[in-house]
Amino acid sequence: MLEGIHWIAGKKVTGSRLFHAHNPATGEKLEPGYPEASSDQIETAVIAAREVHEQRVLFPAEVRVRLLKAMARNLQEQLPQIQQRGVLETGLPEGRFEAEMGRTCSQLLQFAETVSSGLFRETVLQSADPERSPLPRPDLRRRMIPLGPIAVFGASNFPLAFGVAGGDTASAIAAGCPVVVKAHPAHPGVCELVGAAITSAVEEVELPAGVFSLIHGESFDVGVGLTSHPEISAVGFTGSQSGGLSLWRIAAQREVPIPVFAEMGSANPVFVLPGAIAERGEEIASGMASSVLLGVGQFCTCPGILVLIRDENSEAFKAVLSRELFHGPVGTMLHSGIHAGYKKGLQEVAERNGVQLMGKGPVSSGACDAEAGLLAADARRFIEDPQLQAEIFGPSTLLVECDDLQQLHKVASVLEGQLTATIHATEAELIDQQELLQRLEDRVGRIIFNGFPTGVEVGEAMQHGGPWPATTDSRWTSVGMTALERFQRPVCWQGFPEALLPEDLVAGKNDATSFRLDGEWHQGSAH
Amino acid sequence: MLEGIHWIAGKKVTGSRLFHAHNPATGEKLEPGYPEASSDQIETAVIAAREVHEQRVLFPAEVRVRLLKAMARNLQEQLPQIQQRGVLETGLPEGRFEAEMGRTCSQLLQFAETVSSGLFRETVLQSADPERSPLPRPDLRRRMIPLGPIAVFGASNFPLAFGVAGGDTASAIAAGCPVVVKAHPAHPGVCELVGAAITSAVEEVELPAGVFSLIHGESFDVGVGLTSHPEISAVGFTGSQSGGLSLWRIAAQREVPIPVFAEMGSANPVFVLPGAIAERGEEIASGMASSVLLGVGQFCTCPGILVLIRDENSEAFKAVLSRELFHGPVGTMLHSGIHAGYKKGLQEVAERNGVQLMGKGPVSSGACDAEAGLLAADARRFIEDPQLQAEIFGPSTLLVECDDLQQLHKVASVLEGQLTATIHATEAELIDQQELLQRLEDRVGRIIFNGFPTGVEVGEAMQHGGPWPATTDSRWTSVGMTALERFQRPVCWQGFPEALLPEDLVAGKNDATSFRLDGEWHQGSAH
Repeated sequence: MLEGIHWIAGKKVTGSRLFHAHNPATGEKLEPGYPEASSDQIETAVIAAREVHEQRVLFPAEVRVRLLKAMARNLQEQLPQIQQRGVLETGLPEGRFEAEMGRTCSQLLQFAETVSSGLFRETVLQSADPERSPLPRPDLRRRMIPLGPIAVFGASNFPLAFGVAGGDTASAIAAGCPVVVKAHPAHPGVCELVGAAITSAVEEVELPAGVFSLIHGESFDVGVGLTSHPEISAVGFTGSQSGGLSLWRIAAQREVPIPVFAEMGSANPVFVLPGAIAERGEEIASGMASSVLLGVGQFCTCPGILVLIRDENSEAFKAVLSRELFHGPVGTMLHSGIHAGYKKGLQEVAERNGVQLMGKGPVSSGACDAEAGLLAADARRFIEDPQLQAEIFGPSTLLVECDDLQQLHKVASVLEGQLTATIHATEAELIDQQELLQRLEDRVGRIIFNGFPTGVEVGEAMQHGGPWPATTDSRWTSVGMTALERFQRPVCWQGFPEALLPEDLVAGKNDATSFRLDGEWHQGSAH
Repeated sequence: MLEGIHWIAGKKVTGSRLFHAHNPATGEKLEPGYPEASSDQIETAVIAAREVHEQRVLFPAEVRVRLLKAMARNLQEQLPQIQQRGVLETGLPEGRFEAEMGRTCSQLLQFAETVSSGLFRETVLQSADPERSPLPRPDLRRRMIPLGPIAVFGASNFPLAFGVAGGDTASAIAAGCPVVVKAHPAHPGVCELVGAAITSAVEEVELPAGVFSLIHGESFDVGVGLTSHPEISAVGFTGSQSGGLSLWRIAAQREVPIPVFAEMGSANPVFVLPGAIAERGEEIASGMASSVLLGVGQFCTCPGILVLIRDENSEAFKAVLSRELFHGPVGTMLHSGIHAGYKKGLQEVAERNGVQLMGKGPVSSGACDAEAGLLAADARRFIEDPQLQAEIFGPSTLLVECDDLQQLHKVASVLEGQLTATIHATEAELIDQQELLQRLEDRVGRIIFNGFPTGVEVGEAMQHGGPWPATTDSRWTSVGMTALERFQRPVCWQGFPEALLPEDLVAGKNDATSFRLDGEWHQGSAH
């Protein structure tokens, strides 16, 4: 069924220099082999994408809507095959693929809805005023246009929702950009299946095939080649800090540098105030353990830091946390690289001055099976040693113990950029802690009350991003409808008669579009 | 009256290593001397700004509105002094300061209006849905917060509108960010006066003085020190490509890189189609000459390339253009650096293979007086030689002569990123040239019909930006109300009870704010 191919502008393309995925549970090599994309193959994919952009294939909103819907439909049909192969390639349970498929398809459909509403087009019209003094005011019409071909690098930890048809691809297409995806080498088979679904969607909607390509590569070269290609306009990346920063640097060294939006995860600190522990310590400890262990700790929002104040309840809280973290084997990690990185990261932090390894959980015998970890450090050490903030990608957390609220504030104020921060408190004890909330807001993209950071809702109000090094640019998000804004840019048309204007800049011509005219909102008749 | 001082967080600060401005018309050294900011002085300014950010001084919309209005008021009062000194420092005519002051103040007031309308806050609320399956939906509220302290580098060519209180400062404050401005060393006296007006405004509105600082420096070190300071969150720059790219590189090399929005000008090509020449060639040629000569060619939107098709009317058109360009001395350039750069740039392009210097205008005897220049090249050469696209900052333009429409299309398709492109045509001849408009739209931030690129309207629909190398990021603008979006970032508050939320995230609490609630727009009662 799988053919070990690239999907380049609608065509199955084979190649040489094969690599293989491995079953992380058994170490077994999985057939077929996948080829490394050659520079000619990258060229073909990118040039086809550029032509699509130049021909404005995805400019009309209704074309994007049809494509996004066809993608969702075709993907859903592929679920059984994807599930079967996915379990082998990732060690994730079957149910995970079903859940992720639901999220991936609903994400595509939400983008379709957003595009058809026109809300994020930010079309703004200003009428001419020939009588204005000292100078007449020209007619100005500003619209958002797609940036151009986008390179997408999916993550290993969400093979569907942050993969080939994941948030970056969905938002780029929603923005009107053709996409060239670099498949994740840990699950090339899942990528091939998802690529087939998108390729068919492009065909069904009768679009030029250059709208979408999928290329494979295990070496760093393919990513470098794609990011360096002069016709690539921007990059969406989800993954490790080292991977994201490398691409960001390559993009900055191009003759024409391009934006790279890299979402690189973070330590997602959780602050638990004394009143919350007193009121529901057991529930919080147990919820925290579930959040740390979710997906074997392989979520970019996994809470890797837990900050609390030593008091009469904190020992009991820690005991429940240990018990819940260590109650059984936690499962298989995604691949040997992540597994080795987790073990190394845990050990490196455990060996830092003032850090204790409070315990490790049981582990079963799979090649990439992980053991949960619990580290602890005094707040004083945490404040002094920035290394303790390093994300350890996997099922562990670092307990930071404070003497008092003042020290807890200090911990909040030394945090580097994070995707999220969470605070557990009673309403009464937090009402006077505006400053703590402010210190956290300054350092994160999302702040959560009495919940946990894992679980990122797809919606208009979501922010999945954050200050460096959580992402390369805190002004954008990679989840939620505004993610499409990363891949658009404004153009102002000045003084054109209506007959010469693009349709979406003529009020009343495109009923589906909302726009602002001389400072007032207008919604198309679709509303 | 002038004291040769920095304005650091409300205080007059003196220093050593003095430099002087010079009158470009006479070469005369202008007293007083201005000090180079020391690293301690930079530190003081930035730390004061950080405290303002941490204390959320400029978070409330009404505070920003009051400050922006007070700035406009105080600036207007300083006009006579600014005018008197400005003429000496810049060689610009008196009337220019009056006009620029009008623009600068109306820009501040427009931002005040925009901030109080709340339109660009992009506040989005999504209600919780505890019944949703498979997982309940949390309450999500997304708001835009200021990025933090912003470093602003003003331009020499618009000492007011793109200077200390210009678009970058106005938009940063409108976004809620404290600002540290590096004064332009060519007009430090004007900067001191504008700095005094802003400092008084901060005092009058009773804000902490760290909201605004102004530091001087002639060496590159001060800019490097400011951009490298870990507490600076972003940079706004208007000026030369070499200056902008240097700051951009420094920012990229920081431990925590920050966004630099550099608007670096461009060649702003003007395309004139045969029908337009036949219909009103003389008017277009004369308008073109005025646009090239405006402000002695020292506008970032100065049209440095003119593309036309050789036909029976083109020779007459060229004759009018030459006549209008060369009819008299064009005036004094801003400073000796720009003057030398213009002469060098003109000579370098004139010496390229296939380029003819068609003529130079008369010049008067001032130290920095410029002569208008007209270059010409065949389209074939222009297409082959990217060096011909280099911006020559000053009153010259390069005529690119095409054999036919096809070649003119080719010229459009090899253009590098531009702030603007302009097209003169009859409606009838352009109606079939959608592809030409598309090629241009792909390469510019603003596209103008039957007008000229100089003159950048301040308004909601303006886009003053464009693909690299016109700016460092085509997704933002430095003129128009959306310029404030450069200095904000989204934060999502999840699951908070209303009592703990910032006021602007509670529907109905802040009447002045517009927001989206569950997909529908709501405007505050201020509307």
